[in-house]
Amino acid sequence: MDDRVHDHADVLVDWSARIESGDDVVMSVSEGAHDLAVAVAAKLGERGANLVSTYGSAELNRAYLRAHDGEFDDDPGHELALFEESDAVLSLGGGRNTAAQADVPGEVRGAYSKAHEDTREAYMDTDWVSTVHPTRSLAQQAGMSHEAYQEFVYDAVLRDWEALAEEMSEMKEILDAGSEVHLRGGDTDLTMSIEERTAVNSTASVADDSHNLPSGEVFTAPHATDGEVVFDVPMTLRGTRVEDVWLAFDDGEAVDYDAARNPEVVGELLDTDEGARRLGELGIGMNRGIDRPTDSILFDEKMAETVHLALGRAYDACLPDDEAGNDSAIHADLITDVSDDSSLAVDGEIIQRDGTFRWEDGFEG
Amino acid sequence: MDDRVHDHADVLVDWSARIESGDDVVMSVSEGAHDLAVAVAAKLGERGANLVSTYGSAELNRAYLRAHDGEFDDDPGHELALFEESDAVLSLGGGRNTAAQADVPGEVRGAYSKAHEDTREAYMDTDWVSTVHPTRSLAQQAGMSHEAYQEFVYDAVLRDWEALAEEMSEMKEILDAGSEVHLRGGDTDLTMSIEERTAVNSTASVADDSHNLPSGEVFTAPHATDGEVVFDVPMTLRGTRVEDVWLAFDDGEAVDYDAARNPEVVGELLDTDEGARRLGELGIGMNRGIDRPTDSILFDEKMAETVHLALGRAYDACLPDDEAGNDSAIHADLITDVSDDSSLAVDGEIIQRDGTFRWEDGFEG
Repeated sequence: MDDRVHDHADVLVDWSARIESGDDVVMSVSEGAHDLAVAVAAKLGERGANLVSTYGSAELNRAYLRAHDGEFDDDPGHELALFEESDAVLSLGGGRNTAAQADVPGEVRGAYSKAHEDTREAYMDTDWVSTVHPTRSLAQQAGMSHEAYQEFVYDAVLRDWEALAEEMSEMKEILDAGSEVHLRGGDTDLTMSIEERTAVNSTASVADDSHNLPSGEVFTAPHATDGEVVFDVPMTLRGTRVEDVWLAFDDGEAVDYDAARNPEVVGELLDTDEGARRLGELGIGMNRGIDRPTDSILFDEKMAETVHLALGRAYDACLPDDEAGNDSAIHADLITDVSDDSSLAVDGEIIQRDGTFRWEDGFEG
Repeated sequence: MDDRVHDHADVLVDWSARIESGDDVVMSVSEGAHDLAVAVAAKLGERGANLVSTYGSAELNRAYLRAHDGEFDDDPGHELALFEESDAVLSLGGGRNTAAQADVPGEVRGAYSKAHEDTREAYMDTDWVSTVHPTRSLAQQAGMSHEAYQEFVYDAVLRDWEALAEEMSEMKEILDAGSEVHLRGGDTDLTMSIEERTAVNSTASVADDSHNLPSGEVFTAPHATDGEVVFDVPMTLRGTRVEDVWLAFDDGEAVDYDAARNPEVVGELLDTDEGARRLGELGIGMNRGIDRPTDSILFDEKMAETVHLALGRAYDACLPDDEAGNDSAIHADLITDVSDDSSLAVDGEIIQRDGTFRWEDGFEG
């Protein structure tokens, strides 16, 4: 087996999930993630953890959901008990066809999801971590050869996470102390308030409440957004590809929009509910192992030299205790490239210019 | 997908496990059983059952067990809870390599098994059913092409189970009423008492306490065995192939043995403990879909025109309430072909001659 698969398992078990002897661990194995699962199982055995492996097959889920009448029992006892009694859940993504569930009606998925709210909560109460094994299907989604995609994934996952966490904490300090963020470049000129908001260091470790591997972003919850922004990194929204989304904000609310491709999807998104027109997240990508978009939010939003904004729901961790923050049924990330002709300033001081942070070599304030 | 895979799923869910709406079901999916799992998932969805799928990967288990120090926690809470809260467990065997765990030390397997006694008990308390998907690995084990092996498996599984169950109940009645069984043929001349013993109809349905698909045998717990018997169907005992095992019994105890191949394995088996020299089971194979041995006890012992005897532990279901029956750490099945020059008699009346039962066409009393 490729050494990098074992290295991936090491990072997942030790850095991300912090597994210790005696931990009750669930490992969810996607159809294409067998090799990573074997490496993780070895690591869990070495740590003396207790393992239950579940089969996270999209084809199996599709068959079950399509055959069901859609009236699902609320939180089946055996599944709920499994997660309630677990310390950690390691979710190994990577299937054989990203469109495997394309013909499951949305309302059936929604009904299943709604019937499993307590189960999902029990899952979220564990030290859960999501990662992916670089399958051919994901390579295809990214428009890359399998070999190149493997290199891409391992570059993103096999970081010096301690060093990156330290760098990210520098960014967090700046955001926590700051009041106003100003993003400029090309047709983008946007200001947001981050006063009294707390930034989260997404270090790919449950120790920092970060549950994705890879991670590598610092995010907070902005408000009072004003100005215009162009998202020049292509995205998939509700299954539809959009390009060069443009949004105009006035006093925190998106008042106009456009896109070079499928603008109507952006319109539908904004019309979801009240909160869908306001930002729930400002995130700064800091993972230099991720050098291109691959049509996967797990990677794209952490890409170095990008900034992302999400329409919709804000994360509680960013908000003061007495504030609810922006609420919405959606949380839709949109990404802008800041590698060139761009600046990010906090309270008038430039933090990142043309993709280079203040503390990095080559920074030109 | 092959229609027979869906038919297999139908038999498993409806006839064998008797799944009903609202049942909490665990489905364990071996590495090679994906297609069957998809078909079973569809059937479970149709029935309105609640599904958790586990990944029964031999390679994953091997990696975990080999990396572990061997001091396993007793009955991990998450795994125990999963089975305690389940109504049924469907185990879909069929891997990619029957020797995948050959290099896991026996003592590690034993320690793992010992640490999971309560978990196993919780599992056995459900309506569990074991079956296999016909993988290439199992075809290889059987010495058959994949296509021929698929036909073999579906012939064994896709029976008219209701009709077979009825035929088997006829056999059960005879055994329940009978006192002495006499097996003759070639060098075999053996008598056993079945007085006060109850036969079990292994109909491949949990409704009859039968947990294998396929099944198709009637078995009871003999005692006071006398005479000689030759087991001319090749078997694998403790990982070693044996052929033409010969046993001589006196007053219930095996007093002499031999074999044409690897007789020492038979000797080791008999020396396991006190009960290993006595019979725990007399079984009569009645599944006419199984027409040859395939080095898999799931199929071999149900083969039509064979009788099997097991050294060691007897099943409680066959014994009077006040009797413990033969006890042993082993339960080793040995099979004899009764298709030719052979007779099986109960209390002097011939029930089966040359493979044909009394109630079948061509029977010659």
